[in-house]
Amino acid sequence: MKFRRSERLIDMTDYLLKHPRKLVPLTFFAERYSSAKSSISEDLAIIKEVFEVRGIGTLQTVSGAAGGVKYQVHSTYEEARKFIGQLCETMTSPARLLPGGYLYMTDILGDPAIVQKVGRMIASKYSKTPVDVVMTIATKGIPLAYSVANYLNVPVVIVRRDSIVTEGPTVSINYVSGSTNRIQTMSLSKRSLAAGSNVLIVDDFMKAGGTVNGMVSMLEEFRANVAGIAVLMEAEQAEGRLVDEYLSLIRLKDVDLKQKQIKMCEGNYFSE
Amino acid sequence: MKFRRSERLIDMTDYLLKHPRKLVPLTFFAERYSSAKSSISEDLAIIKEVFEVRGIGTLQTVSGAAGGVKYQVHSTYEEARKFIGQLCETMTSPARLLPGGYLYMTDILGDPAIVQKVGRMIASKYSKTPVDVVMTIATKGIPLAYSVANYLNVPVVIVRRDSIVTEGPTVSINYVSGSTNRIQTMSLSKRSLAAGSNVLIVDDFMKAGGTVNGMVSMLEEFRANVAGIAVLMEAEQAEGRLVDEYLSLIRLKDVDLKQKQIKMCEGNYFSE
Repeated sequence: MKFRRSERLIDMTDYLLKHPRKLVPLTFFAERYSSAKSSISEDLAIIKEVFEVRGIGTLQTVSGAAGGVKYQVHSTYEEARKFIGQLCETMTSPARLLPGGYLYMTDILGDPAIVQKVGRMIASKYSKTPVDVVMTIATKGIPLAYSVANYLNVPVVIVRRDSIVTEGPTVSINYVSGSTNRIQTMSLSKRSLAAGSNVLIVDDFMKAGGTVNGMVSMLEEFRANVAGIAVLMEAEQAEGRLVDEYLSLIRLKDVDLKQKQIKMCEGNYFSE
Repeated sequence: MKFRRSERLIDMTDYLLKHPRKLVPLTFFAERYSSAKSSISEDLAIIKEVFEVRGIGTLQTVSGAAGGVKYQVHSTYEEARKFIGQLCETMTSPARLLPGGYLYMTDILGDPAIVQKVGRMIASKYSKTPVDVVMTIATKGIPLAYSVANYLNVPVVIVRRDSIVTEGPTVSINYVSGSTNRIQTMSLSKRSLAAGSNVLIVDDFMKAGGTVNGMVSMLEEFRANVAGIAVLMEAEQAEGRLVDEYLSLIRLKDVDLKQKQIKMCEGNYFSE
């Protein structure tokens, strides 16, 4: 069956979007559509332009025998600004205030459209970093981790606060929660992470950084490397933070329980 | 800026894939590309054909003033057969056997490509059912639930086995785990689910169905409706199951710990 250009463009767009960061040889598309490689090259030039103009992502063409084309997610500055601005606004609603100064975020983390956008933002920043695995801790970070992992085309490992019977032997470590100063335990299935992996740590919220720091210690235990640390929201800390380098989308500046006011601003996403 | 057909097709494909089950008026695309509605109609006819031929999904065109186009995920019979067959094979590896006859599935649930496919399969079956929310229980069902919810374009609510401080007031119920016969507790944040919602319950594994049954009771508590129940894997049950109607992709027939053998077959996915 022969495909016309218009048909190829639709199917190639779908294929590339579903396989981010994968180098697809031109011959793959040439065979898929019984078309000449020169036609495929022209198709890709059109897709590349539209992807860039519409902020869908970038297409990188690698020439030579082992060459091909690679789609990488990329969110534009305008898109990120707008989205992070909206997120700040959504988060400052006084109805979100819970006893103890906690904020209700369940609705935000339960909205796949928002979770996808957050994943796009984070993945964009690490699209050129070697990342083999995304790591998070149960439960709230899980959807964000999968969204990032989808865009980076890598697996997810989930650290747990309890140890369950259906994951086989686990490695457990103790860590100190930075905000409460209590000693806690986290564990990870032994066969879920290979030594030498480059791991991007993703979580929903970071206060002093105790939990993230625990995950860093866990990586040491597995002799894996920290490729990056990214959180949706960080809380401004008067005292020292346990984690130095990280990426945050929004920052909680202040919670005034009496006045029922939440102050939120953008995180360090734009500060490089 | 005017867009050529080839450019429109690429951007429309991206847009439709990102907005499943949403009715997009033709005028939206006409304005987006400064094009005549007749051209948009022709574009959509091409996209519809390619989506169907390549098994990407279906495009439904609604005519009239309130009309537009709606993309729905649809996995073909061949795709489902192949994927479910592979899944059965992957799951029968003796290396998956854990003490107590449990099976190691962490790698499968940690692979976003597999999770996406499972989500596609399940969402395909419910693409025409009214579903407002996907519900799951922490922890293992979460990635599957988000994948299904993405394809159905609805939010996710997560029932928890513990009650945490950052979700506000919760509703808790007791349920009996069908396999262990122990009484357990599950809770759900009060503001996370509206009365009257049509809820699709998604989980990774169902044995006797106690946990799923607990979620059904939870829905009664919220005066919400069960739109469906879907699990990745069910275990064959000698004794009665607590849940009648459900969808399963694969079925665990038997685990022989002595012979280190796992018997797996397809679930009821194809049996309608």
